[in-house]
Amino acid sequence: MTEIQLYDTTLRDGAQREGISFSVADKLHIAQRLDDFGMHFIEGGWPGANPKDNEFFQQALKMGFKNASLVAFGSTRKAGIAAEDDVTLKALLESGAPVVTLVGKSSAPQVEKVLATTLEENIRMVTDSIEFLKAHGRRVFLDAEHFFDGYKADQAYALAVLKAAAAAGAECLVLCDTNGGALPGEIAEAVSAVVSAVNVPVGIHAHNDAELAVANSLAAVKAGAVQVQGTINGYGERCGNANLCSIIPALKLKFGLDVLPDNNLSDLTELSHFVSEVANLAPDPFLPYVGHSAFSHKAGLHVSGLARWEFAYQHIDPAAVGNKPRTLVSELSGKTNIVQRATEIGVELPARGKEVKALLQRVKDLESLGFQYENAEASFDLLVHRAATGYQPPFELIDFMVVIEKRRRAPMVSLAHEEMMSEAIVKVRVNGEVMHTAAEGNGPVNALDLALRKALLPSYPTLARVNLKDFKVRILEESTGTGSIVRVLIESTDGNEEWHTVGASSNLIEASWLALVDSLEYWLLKNGGQV
Amino acid sequence: MTEIQLYDTTLRDGAQREGISFSVADKLHIAQRLDDFGMHFIEGGWPGANPKDNEFFQQALKMGFKNASLVAFGSTRKAGIAAEDDVTLKALLESGAPVVTLVGKSSAPQVEKVLATTLEENIRMVTDSIEFLKAHGRRVFLDAEHFFDGYKADQAYALAVLKAAAAAGAECLVLCDTNGGALPGEIAEAVSAVVSAVNVPVGIHAHNDAELAVANSLAAVKAGAVQVQGTINGYGERCGNANLCSIIPALKLKFGLDVLPDNNLSDLTELSHFVSEVANLAPDPFLPYVGHSAFSHKAGLHVSGLARWEFAYQHIDPAAVGNKPRTLVSELSGKTNIVQRATEIGVELPARGKEVKALLQRVKDLESLGFQYENAEASFDLLVHRAATGYQPPFELIDFMVVIEKRRRAPMVSLAHEEMMSEAIVKVRVNGEVMHTAAEGNGPVNALDLALRKALLPSYPTLARVNLKDFKVRILEESTGTGSIVRVLIESTDGNEEWHTVGASSNLIEASWLALVDSLEYWLLKNGGQV
Repeated sequence: MTEIQLYDTTLRDGAQREGISFSVADKLHIAQRLDDFGMHFIEGGWPGANPKDNEFFQQALKMGFKNASLVAFGSTRKAGIAAEDDVTLKALLESGAPVVTLVGKSSAPQVEKVLATTLEENIRMVTDSIEFLKAHGRRVFLDAEHFFDGYKADQAYALAVLKAAAAAGAECLVLCDTNGGALPGEIAEAVSAVVSAVNVPVGIHAHNDAELAVANSLAAVKAGAVQVQGTINGYGERCGNANLCSIIPALKLKFGLDVLPDNNLSDLTELSHFVSEVANLAPDPFLPYVGHSAFSHKAGLHVSGLARWEFAYQHIDPAAVGNKPRTLVSELSGKTNIVQRATEIGVELPARGKEVKALLQRVKDLESLGFQYENAEASFDLLVHRAATGYQPPFELIDFMVVIEKRRRAPMVSLAHEEMMSEAIVKVRVNGEVMHTAAEGNGPVNALDLALRKALLPSYPTLARVNLKDFKVRILEESTGTGSIVRVLIESTDGNEEWHTVGASSNLIEASWLALVDSLEYWLLKNGGQV
Repeated sequence: MTEIQLYDTTLRDGAQREGISFSVADKLHIAQRLDDFGMHFIEGGWPGANPKDNEFFQQALKMGFKNASLVAFGSTRKAGIAAEDDVTLKALLESGAPVVTLVGKSSAPQVEKVLATTLEENIRMVTDSIEFLKAHGRRVFLDAEHFFDGYKADQAYALAVLKAAAAAGAECLVLCDTNGGALPGEIAEAVSAVVSAVNVPVGIHAHNDAELAVANSLAAVKAGAVQVQGTINGYGERCGNANLCSIIPALKLKFGLDVLPDNNLSDLTELSHFVSEVANLAPDPFLPYVGHSAFSHKAGLHVSGLARWEFAYQHIDPAAVGNKPRTLVSELSGKTNIVQRATEIGVELPARGKEVKALLQRVKDLESLGFQYENAEASFDLLVHRAATGYQPPFELIDFMVVIEKRRRAPMVSLAHEEMMSEAIVKVRVNGEVMHTAAEGNGPVNALDLALRKALLPSYPTLARVNLKDFKVRILEESTGTGSIVRVLIESTDGNEEWHTVGASSNLIEASWLALVDSLEYWLLKNGGQV
């Protein structure tokens, strides 16, 4: 069986995604996780182009990897100069990375129009650069930029560049669909042609501009490519790079290729979420294999089908990639789901009782006010608890007030946060006693949070371990501008578990407050305030 | 040339996406746009399953379509009863839709495990149902559920179901990859086999669970399928349906198939954004072809390449799908981009002057405080203006105060927003005069907005047409909970143009305030307060 090399470029090409800005520490954390996961090559950056990248290579080499080889990325020498005088090649050497991926042009029109040099000089740039790095003991991969477009435009030249690189000592010829517009059939044909024309392993580097990067990568492997380059979550410039989170399970589960040590595949979902956390991007719930919704079932038909046969509506076992199935609460499901959820969380709601009917009505009313429970199971569970007769909440709100003040004298748009003042006063009933507390905070929601905790902590000291993890606001009716209804979704954690709550209001502070209160009430309820 | 039918199921299968809940009016708006765009079939819903869907069909038939045929979706008759006694079939007839897509099982294990009936009865269910609808004058398509899994499990039975449906009068046999796990090669092989086994047109309905829905749809067309089902933006259950916004341009621009009237393709980006607006989902900027980032260029290398050759880093002309290229501002670009942007907006900043250096430093400082300009060009342009010597802002803030109060007496978690009170006091210098205004608002940001407008409108009455369009909040540092730094992105519109501004602070209100102030200042600057 062919041995496939997994090559991750999240830290270099992935970092080009709009909105991503990794620190050196971020990159080191991610690199370590990629190594643990079993990635064979980790491309760390472009030494010389960015001072952060230089520091990353220094520290990554100090840290060391268990499985992976560290790769530095850079371009072939500039036209018209010697390799030893080229700043980029020097920086690549100085990075200390044992492997270098050199980007070189393999498309004749790109050479003439963009590089603005001759076809012959471009080939010399490729061979000189490879020979120079090999002479200094580096392993070299060629990233053949614009290969597939170049192959269409001038097949002989595209192949000539690859053959020259192979002769100069490149260990792998990575065919790059730089603009991401190639079709799987074109990829398969060109890869086959290269595999039979050269005697060096071939790789694939695809972009997702035509929503085909995963298909193109798989087509290349089928046609004989043995190295697959991509990024976690498909992060990358424009529409992204080939998504390793979809490619790896396809190779392992559908192609039956042993690309990873056994059992590592079940870390995939965690790895995907970890990288999105470090990138400070909300995880995309709709991602194949690893998304929160990837194995969610909403329609009544599918839910009842799943109850009869586990694989009725699942293409793989979610556990294989570390994910799990979910049933959604929505207007499409109805009473059965509510009763089932009540049973799951240990609340007795008779299926034909008036409580279920009232709860269903309440969910509908709240949804029409902007609440949404699909992503806020904890708030939904609280509704179920509150619907049960005899429910005793761990605390009861009476009222609150917030004052926010900004006083400035000099600068036009000041950023001095210390000039801002936020104070909150809260009145809460806890265990029969009315607590009246006040706090100053870093913003109004923080002030409310602190005042509320002041009131609750004497009775529930373990609440201190509950923290806000993510906080999302969505506006629901555009036309009314700043007076629109907003929905706030809060993700909380106690270090072990995570839960989601929702609040909606035309008042941003009230919406945040409702979600915040639900978060604390949910945790107290679940842990009896005792854990 | 084969004539390809485009079949849109955004209103039925697309509506299954987590977070989507269309009203009847939403569905009618979308249907009209799909018809204008040139879609051949519009599937409106599942009559009988949802009272909304019944109303939709009534109104859609009244409205009428220019190009498209309206389709109702439903399942074959239940096991063991006559077609004329089946509630679903009756509802399909009553919908009045001229075309019906009937979902029937074509996978032997699905029939036995999920339907829990015999293989023979399932075939009778398919044929009876088709014959019943045909007898009542309806055109019928068969949606062969789980076809590709069924074809792998029991090829003879899967084909037998299709042949029975064809014999009963089905006009098109739509092969469905219900679980979304099939590979393009499997799709191509099975479609080819069906095309040569039956004499009725074949369609494809793919899901994106393996990130292959677009590739699978294109593979099916290449193998002979003539109907392609999908949704706008790939909305759909779990990881979504096949994305028509990627399939249609591939068919038209890459396969050279004339699937749409000329010129309609350039409405694609607008259609995509329209549907996400109606669905109340932020448009995904990373979507191929139609995303805001689909033709964005961040790295200096790509930007300079594009300046030399338009197609250096673009797989198609963005205008062909109604999109356009963008250059991004970020730490990866630097001084050249800033000077270029200044020139574009008519601000004189000498390339080697101290203003550019100071501005670059200011951008870095602000980015480290949580500001981000990639999605907030208007705020960035303001920074450029403010960096120029002699800049005169249209107004100057002095200070503000906000009070938010909630008083409640009775219910546990009240939703009565009228109990909330938000008041703001604002002091602003406009044209040399200090305006001190106060307003009560629907939430604190609205109160600030109203108070600020009260101060500005006497001098700038046209500001009344500026409205908030979208409002996004992201938390930037998890560990500090409700005291975290938040970034607010505001999208504003004056009815013609849209612009984006950013604010960041540990105080949610201040962050909103900064983005709001930028939005108004930007508009005043651009329109001279005179338009």
